[in-house]
Amino acid sequence: MNGTLYLVPNTLDFGVAAAESETSGIPDLQQVLPLGVIRIAARLPCWVAENAKTTRAFLKRVNEVVPLSQPLQAIAIVELPRANKGSQQAPAVKLDALLAPALAGQDIGLISEAGLPAVADPGAALVQAAHALKVRVEALSGPSSLMLALAASGLNGQSFAFVGYLPVDAAARLTRIRELEALSRRAQQTQLMIETPYRNATLLSALLSGLSGSTRLSVSCGLTLEQGWSRTDTVSAWKASPTTVPADTPAVFSLLA
Amino acid sequence: MNGTLYLVPNTLDFGVAAAESETSGIPDLQQVLPLGVIRIAARLPCWVAENAKTTRAFLKRVNEVVPLSQPLQAIAIVELPRANKGSQQAPAVKLDALLAPALAGQDIGLISEAGLPAVADPGAALVQAAHALKVRVEALSGPSSLMLALAASGLNGQSFAFVGYLPVDAAARLTRIRELEALSRRAQQTQLMIETPYRNATLLSALLSGLSGSTRLSVSCGLTLEQGWSRTDTVSAWKASPTTVPADTPAVFSLLA
Repeated sequence: MNGTLYLVPNTLDFGVAAAESETSGIPDLQQVLPLGVIRIAARLPCWVAENAKTTRAFLKRVNEVVPLSQPLQAIAIVELPRANKGSQQAPAVKLDALLAPALAGQDIGLISEAGLPAVADPGAALVQAAHALKVRVEALSGPSSLMLALAASGLNGQSFAFVGYLPVDAAARLTRIRELEALSRRAQQTQLMIETPYRNATLLSALLSGLSGSTRLSVSCGLTLEQGWSRTDTVSAWKASPTTVPADTPAVFSLLA
Repeated sequence: MNGTLYLVPNTLDFGVAAAESETSGIPDLQQVLPLGVIRIAARLPCWVAENAKTTRAFLKRVNEVVPLSQPLQAIAIVELPRANKGSQQAPAVKLDALLAPALAGQDIGLISEAGLPAVADPGAALVQAAHALKVRVEALSGPSSLMLALAASGLNGQSFAFVGYLPVDAAARLTRIRELEALSRRAQQTQLMIETPYRNATLLSALLSGLSGSTRLSVSCGLTLEQGWSRTDTVSAWKASPTTVPADTPAVFSLLA
C-alpha cells in the first residue's frame, strides 16, 4: 500500500528575529500547531522541503514537544526542485523520484518555509504528481497567513482572491492596482496580495496613491507573532493617519472597493 | 485599555457524526487546534457566536484540554445578528453593542460553526465594527477548509479565488460554471467553491457536465476527519471513473482550466 503525502504547515516566524515569546511557558510550536500535527511530523521518515536547513530546525522544534521517532540525521530530507517564481512547472520525472518512498509504502512530509505548503508557496507540482501516482494526499491544519489576514481584515470573506505579488515596476504596478480595484468593485471580491518584506513600505505607498479614497485597505503584519497587528481603514483614513509597515516582517495586504 | 477581539477557529467536524477517532489517545480538539489557541479560548469571558449552543459544546471540548477559567454558565455568549447569506450587512448599532465588553477592557472571542470566523462564514461585519471602534483584532491559527483543500488539490496556489456558493437554479449554475472556467483559464487562477452537503452530488455532476474535459477538478471531502479524502483529476478522468461525494459531509470543490 502506498504511503501518504502529508502537507505539513510551518510556523509564520521564518526570518523574524525573536519571533515568539519565551515567557508563555509552552514550547512555541504549540502556539500555532496542533499536537496532532506535531505527532505526525515527529514520526515521518522522509521529507520534501523548500529548504532542508530550515526543515532540520523545524524538526528540532518538533522534537521539543514530541520526540522524533528516529534521530534527525536518519531522516531523509530532499529539496524541491526550484521553479521560477509564479510558475508551477518543475520537471515531472524529478517529482516522481521524490515520491518514490511513498510508492514503497513510506509516508512523506511536504513542508515550506512558512504556513501551508503549496499555498502561496512551492509544492503544488509535487502534490499534482502525487495525485497522478495515486498517492494519498492529506493537508494538515496550521496557520495560513492569507486566511488569518482575511479574517482579521473584516473585508468580504464570502468572496476573495489571492493574486500573489504585484509587478515591481512602478507603472505596471499602478496599472495592476487599478485593475484589482475595478475587479474588487465589480465582483465585491476582496483582493489579497503579498510582498517581500523589504518592499512592504513601497507597496503600501503605491496602494495609497493608486486606490480611491473610499476603498478599504487592510494590512496584517507579523501574524501569529507577539508584535503582530492588523489595521483596516479607508485609503483616506490611512493617508490621514499613516502606519509604518516594518521592512523585516511579513505582511499581507487586502483591499475591497 | 480596550480588550482584544480574538477570532477563534472551530473544528471542521460540525454536523458530522462520529467525526474524530477516539483511539488516537489525545483529545480530539488537539488534532486540529494548537494548545496556545485552546489556552486563549479557555480564559475568554465573553463570546460572540454564530450559534450559542454549539459554542457551549466547543467550550466543553476546550475544558477537556485546559480548564475554563470560569464556569461555563458564567461565560457570556451572544449570537451574531443574522444576515442574509452572501450579505455582509448587519445593523451597525447592534454590532457595536456586541463589542461593548471590549470597550470596557474585556477580551471577546468570535467563533463560527466551523473553521475561521469571517472566512466563508459570518463575522466580517463584527470585525469591521471592531476596527472602527479601535478594538484590537487578532485571528488565531486553526483549520481552514478552503486552504486545506487548495493545498491538497495541487492546483495553482499562487493565484486563487473563493467564490462561495453557485446558483441553485440549474441554468444559472451552468452559466456561472462556464464563467468561472473562462476566468480560471484567462488568469490561471484556481476557483474554489462550496456547497451545502446534501447538494454535493448535484454540484459535482453539474461541474462534470459543464466543464471542458481537460479542466482539472479537485474535490476535498471531510477535511481533517478520519474518513477525509482529496481527489484531483481532469474532468474526463472524473467522468471515466466517478467518485461519490457523500451528502452528509462538507466538501470543497476547486477547478483550474
